[in-house]
Amino acid sequence: MRTRTINAIVKTSGTLGALAMEQRPFPTIKPNEVLIKIKKTAICGTDIHIYNWDEWAQKTIKPPQIIGHEFVGEVIEAGEHATNVKPGQIVAGEGHIVCGKCRHCITGYPHLCRQTIGIGVNMDGIFAEYIAFPASNLWVCDNNISLDVLSVLDPLGNATHTALSFNAVGEDVLITGAGPIGLMSVPILKRSGARSIVITDINQDRLDLAMELGATAAVNVQKQTVREAMKNLDLIKEGFDIGLEMSGNGSAFQSMIDVMANGGKIAILGILPQDLPINWSTVIFNSLTLKGIYGRQMFDTWYRTTALLQSGLEKHVKKVITHNFHYTEFQDAFETMCRGKSGKVILDWS
Amino acid sequence: MRTRTINAIVKTSGTLGALAMEQRPFPTIKPNEVLIKIKKTAICGTDIHIYNWDEWAQKTIKPPQIIGHEFVGEVIEAGEHATNVKPGQIVAGEGHIVCGKCRHCITGYPHLCRQTIGIGVNMDGIFAEYIAFPASNLWVCDNNISLDVLSVLDPLGNATHTALSFNAVGEDVLITGAGPIGLMSVPILKRSGARSIVITDINQDRLDLAMELGATAAVNVQKQTVREAMKNLDLIKEGFDIGLEMSGNGSAFQSMIDVMANGGKIAILGILPQDLPINWSTVIFNSLTLKGIYGRQMFDTWYRTTALLQSGLEKHVKKVITHNFHYTEFQDAFETMCRGKSGKVILDWS
Amino acid sequence: MRTRTINAIVKTSGTLGALAMEQRPFPTIKPNEVLIKIKKTAICGTDIHIYNWDEWAQKTIKPPQIIGHEFVGEVIEAGEHATNVKPGQIVAGEGHIVCGKCRHCITGYPHLCRQTIGIGVNMDGIFAEYIAFPASNLWVCDNNISLDVLSVLDPLGNATHTALSFNAVGEDVLITGAGPIGLMSVPILKRSGARSIVITDINQDRLDLAMELGATAAVNVQKQTVREAMKNLDLIKEGFDIGLEMSGNGSAFQSMIDVMANGGKIAILGILPQDLPINWSTVIFNSLTLKGIYGRQMFDTWYRTTALLQSGLEKHVKKVITHNFHYTEFQDAFETMCRGKSGKVILDWS
Amino acid sequence: MRTRTINAIVKTSGTLGALAMEQRPFPTIKPNEVLIKIKKTAICGTDIHIYNWDEWAQKTIKPPQIIGHEFVGEVIEAGEHATNVKPGQIVAGEGHIVCGKCRHCITGYPHLCRQTIGIGVNMDGIFAEYIAFPASNLWVCDNNISLDVLSVLDPLGNATHTALSFNAVGEDVLITGAGPIGLMSVPILKRSGARSIVITDINQDRLDLAMELGATAAVNVQKQTVREAMKNLDLIKEGFDIGLEMSGNGSAFQSMIDVMANGGKIAILGILPQDLPINWSTVIFNSLTLKGIYGRQMFDTWYRTTALLQSGLEKHVKKVITHNFHYTEFQDAFETMCRGKSGKVILDWS
Repeated sequence: MRTRTINAIVKTSGTLGALAMEQRPFPTIKPNEVLIKIKKTAICGTDIHIYNWDEWAQKTIKPPQIIGHEFVGEVIEAGEHATNVKPGQIVAGEGHIVCGKCRHCITGYPHLCRQTIGIGVNMDGIFAEYIAFPASNLWVCDNNISLDVLSVLDPLGNATHTALSFNAVGEDVLITGAGPIGLMSVPILKRSGARSIVITDINQDRLDLAMELGATAAVNVQKQTVREAMKNLDLIKEGFDIGLEMSGNGSAFQSMIDVMANGGKIAILGILPQDLPINWSTVIFNSLTLKGIYGRQMFDTWYRTTALLQSGLEKHVKKVITHNFHYTEFQDAFETMCRGKSGKVILDWS
Repeated sequence: MRTRTINAIVKTSGTLGALAMEQRPFPTIKPNEVLIKIKKTAICGTDIHIYNWDEWAQKTIKPPQIIGHEFVGEVIEAGEHATNVKPGQIVAGEGHIVCGKCRHCITGYPHLCRQTIGIGVNMDGIFAEYIAFPASNLWVCDNNISLDVLSVLDPLGNATHTALSFNAVGEDVLITGAGPIGLMSVPILKRSGARSIVITDINQDRLDLAMELGATAAVNVQKQTVREAMKNLDLIKEGFDIGLEMSGNGSAFQSMIDVMANGGKIAILGILPQDLPINWSTVIFNSLTLKGIYGRQMFDTWYRTTALLQSGLEKHVKKVITHNFHYTEFQDAFETMCRGKSGKVILDWS
Repeated sequence: MRTRTINAIVKTSGTLGALAMEQRPFPTIKPNEVLIKIKKTAICGTDIHIYNWDEWAQKTIKPPQIIGHEFVGEVIEAGEHATNVKPGQIVAGEGHIVCGKCRHCITGYPHLCRQTIGIGVNMDGIFAEYIAFPASNLWVCDNNISLDVLSVLDPLGNATHTALSFNAVGEDVLITGAGPIGLMSVPILKRSGARSIVITDINQDRLDLAMELGATAAVNVQKQTVREAMKNLDLIKEGFDIGLEMSGNGSAFQSMIDVMANGGKIAILGILPQDLPINWSTVIFNSLTLKGIYGRQMFDTWYRTTALLQSGLEKHVKKVITHNFHYTEFQDAFETMCRGKSGKVILDWS
Repeated sequence: MRTRTINAIVKTSGTLGALAMEQRPFPTIKPNEVLIKIKKTAICGTDIHIYNWDEWAQKTIKPPQIIGHEFVGEVIEAGEHATNVKPGQIVAGEGHIVCGKCRHCITGYPHLCRQTIGIGVNMDGIFAEYIAFPASNLWVCDNNISLDVLSVLDPLGNATHTALSFNAVGEDVLITGAGPIGLMSVPILKRSGARSIVITDINQDRLDLAMELGATAAVNVQKQTVREAMKNLDLIKEGFDIGLEMSGNGSAFQSMIDVMANGGKIAILGILPQDLPINWSTVIFNSLTLKGIYGRQMFDTWYRTTALLQSGLEKHVKKVITHNFHYTEFQDAFETMCRGKSGKVILDWS
């Protein structure tokens, strides 16, 4: 069995598109690694950057390289030192490999490690039939959760990590950006006690889905400003207590700063334009907090995300998953993502 | 108008019962006080202690005294310095008058004031048609919330203050005691992100109501132990992350300590038996936190409670209100409370 | 006595300088006010803005107006409702009058009130022999602390509030800006557990004073960059854990962001240039927190500042007070401040 | 070299004393272990329990067993997977081996692991010339800190972990028990911003040392009560904000509860008598927090302890080390400890 090859989706060269199914050797594992049969993978915005070969991709990715990092699979074999998992278990994985030695790694904050290596970014990814994966990066899944939802634990973790940045009980929250992570943040915040959740975007389909997911108001900023929308929500008297920036859009962020309550707190997950100017007087005189968010906590975020899924979140996350393709149809899957009419798009490897 | 008298419910003497409707002068207000027409009042466990003239009441209460402290009413007139409210507003009130000078009072923690005076306990209460009330103790209510629910903001605040002692998102919670405050804590915790909520009592009616309010499990400890119940909830692997002691029962508290996860946190609202011994080794070796809770935060708890009511909690609280009497039927109301088959019991003064 | 007049320092018209000693009626107090005999006042940067009649002053100040807000004085008479102070007590005062009604005011965070009125800014100030002052804004001083130091409790409070924004025990801290508040932050951070404190400025005198106050390194950024200085401090391996921006200088702030450790936290007290662009990728990918700071907490900051003064801070603060003038020499005092070779400058009114 | 034997201090049988120097095989290491040449070890209270063969020892220890867990040594050889250390590095070690799989282990709180195995307690200890030690439990030391102080990082970590349980800036702290850990807590708290530090004991020598280490008051409770002592410290008006229980003495703990301010917080490191009754009404009505403390955080406590040592703490810790014996004189060392006139007692293995 170990001499056969596997299918893998590879970025073959530095041009737009340039994804191809290629054969790779069946992976072998080191003592601290685990052999995994991939069941489902999800396409991340990062994969789309690589597909589109944008500026970030050009300076970061070295083709040919297997891409992808969002997955769920089954443990086939565990290396000698991989004592945390057992064959047969369903697992997902954290896509950041950390150094394990720096202050943050040894004090419980490995997501802050400066030496992080990104799977599917700085090294081969996991869009493949079988993978060898570091045991310490695995999350053992609850079998009662559907494979589709387990395949998006990574971006769902971004949503959880960002949404739980600040205690939301009784607070009014503004989310800028109704992409998959912004959308998944809505039910997380609702469940975590937020009084009202206003979300903005210019994509009406996504705004409609946000309302289905429990948003208090979904504002199409091509039609009205957030401030206008606030007037209809008389609960929000002085501004929003919490903001989640999930659009990467500079003017959305600038507007958010203007409508925060004094002492308001903003978590920033969207990648804002470099050198974006903001109104610092508002930040300072209104005592605002701006918190950059990257990745998710290993593995506190995974634990809490799972706990929320086990107690009602799952049905909401399913609504954000809009497409399911067989992995051989990956070209269709990427084109669907690029058209922007989708939520999460999943590839089936079973 | 100012010469007429009003009806008030008075503890007339130091014996069991001894409540009577008496006439009192129509109240006059000082510059920092507000004249309030009482609309609804609720009977607190404290009022029952006074009714039963137990040991605590004997050393605390000086009859004759008007009793009661849970109310909602309408502002009729505001004193010259009572600029925070206006005639016509619907208000509830914090029953603890604080010194306003100590460290805690001036740094935002007046609920920790050592010089607290209890309305209806250390001075005349508010079971009366009209009252003069210190303006600084008022909470201006949202008119969209029903008067019944507004009349129980004080005990609901106990529930909120206790339930929000520790961040509950994704956590497993044990509540000992399904009295009105324990019951109201269930939907607050659910809404604040708890994964599972297990509640214990020996009153099956109350346990059934707890299930209606969203409890994951309601354990009648006359039939099975908490530890036995845990086995059926395979999510709870190592013990509870959060405990709310709301029974005042020593053995319930002792058992709770035994089933907490390492690092678990317990908020204690129930008045435990003086000199109760506990297993300190468990507290220390398992790194447990025990936090005594008294009253509620002025007015952070009121704000968050209101925010939760405005976003879904109200329908749950209504279920905990089981009886509504005209205030002239107060004897029936107290007897109903004493029989222990009720949730919150309300007197209507309109 | 009440018909006599008092001396007061008045901004007489909207031009540069334009400060004059003028006669004003002896103040009368309302029931919630206190009559204070001023003992010492300190000149704030805000007073210099008014003196220089810069853009901010032009749109904010309405001459003629008494200026000043940093003071210590003696209570001569307390109004009927001013029960928190007594004649003979030494008091300082918070210069922000808040609404007392908004969410922040009633939940213990009045420093976040949106309706704040600034004494000496939006209304007459306290550079006068006697003042009427709202009782609720007073801080009763410890008589064992010198009047000089008590007269600067307001800016010292800015330093405390900013320095205590984040737990500093064992952390490496960078302060940009060695003005009086930056300087006073050094011993506060040292006392609060910081491992190393690096401070930057271009004024060598102030940097030398910073070293006297306990700084680990004082970097003249005209001579070397912070990054160069870091190399000599081998303790700081990955960057600073905490930053205090106290310069209002855009490039200082931009450089600070570059030398923070992942997960680092920055408190911003300096008024940064409007629309300053920063490197948002660093903020986001390095998980930095930026927190705007305004004023100080009423009265938690005052309490902790006093506690620190009572246990060793006083001797350090004295070093930051460089000049003492009789109040009639206020022109000299302002000119001294404008020359920039001073720390805090005090006017004596006794 | 690998066939020679080493000296080790062994509990030979289940009786009082019964410590002997015995020969053991030179240790061999597994891939995830490190070979260490021991330089200094310190005697812990736990070792004294084993020496005295008390009730706890009888049910926990299985002789013959090498004892000891507090050490500093040099890395001689690192196993293949022990990539976090290098030969030549000076290391200390965490004495608790954790499971690495439970929620706490994978979310950054391994000190809360329920499956902890204690080195020198549940398995052979480190009182030996050479040891094989799990790499993941090592702390790489700063060579600038003296070996004596590095050998007590474990109990110093207990002090740090307990003392930093609550933010101490400006607070008044009571420590019950002036043993080595109580003593070391004094300068940690002073450095972390405490206003006053009162310590109690009945051993006058230790109380005198506490004063040398910076205590505000050291109370011999055989001569006066804490409450009497408080009267002389007029800063402490309402009670202590923070308490550290480090005596294991029931009446000391009961008295501490009585002298806490409302909202006060107590960290409990001392092993209190099982079933000790306390005044729960005080805990509840005064809103006290009681927090059990065990071990220290891996490795946040080690990091902060080191940072404090690097910035002034070292000279204080040295004063708590009162005796230094060659390891062959271990009998004298243990007898010295048992006489109770010592601070930390060190064995030199170099």
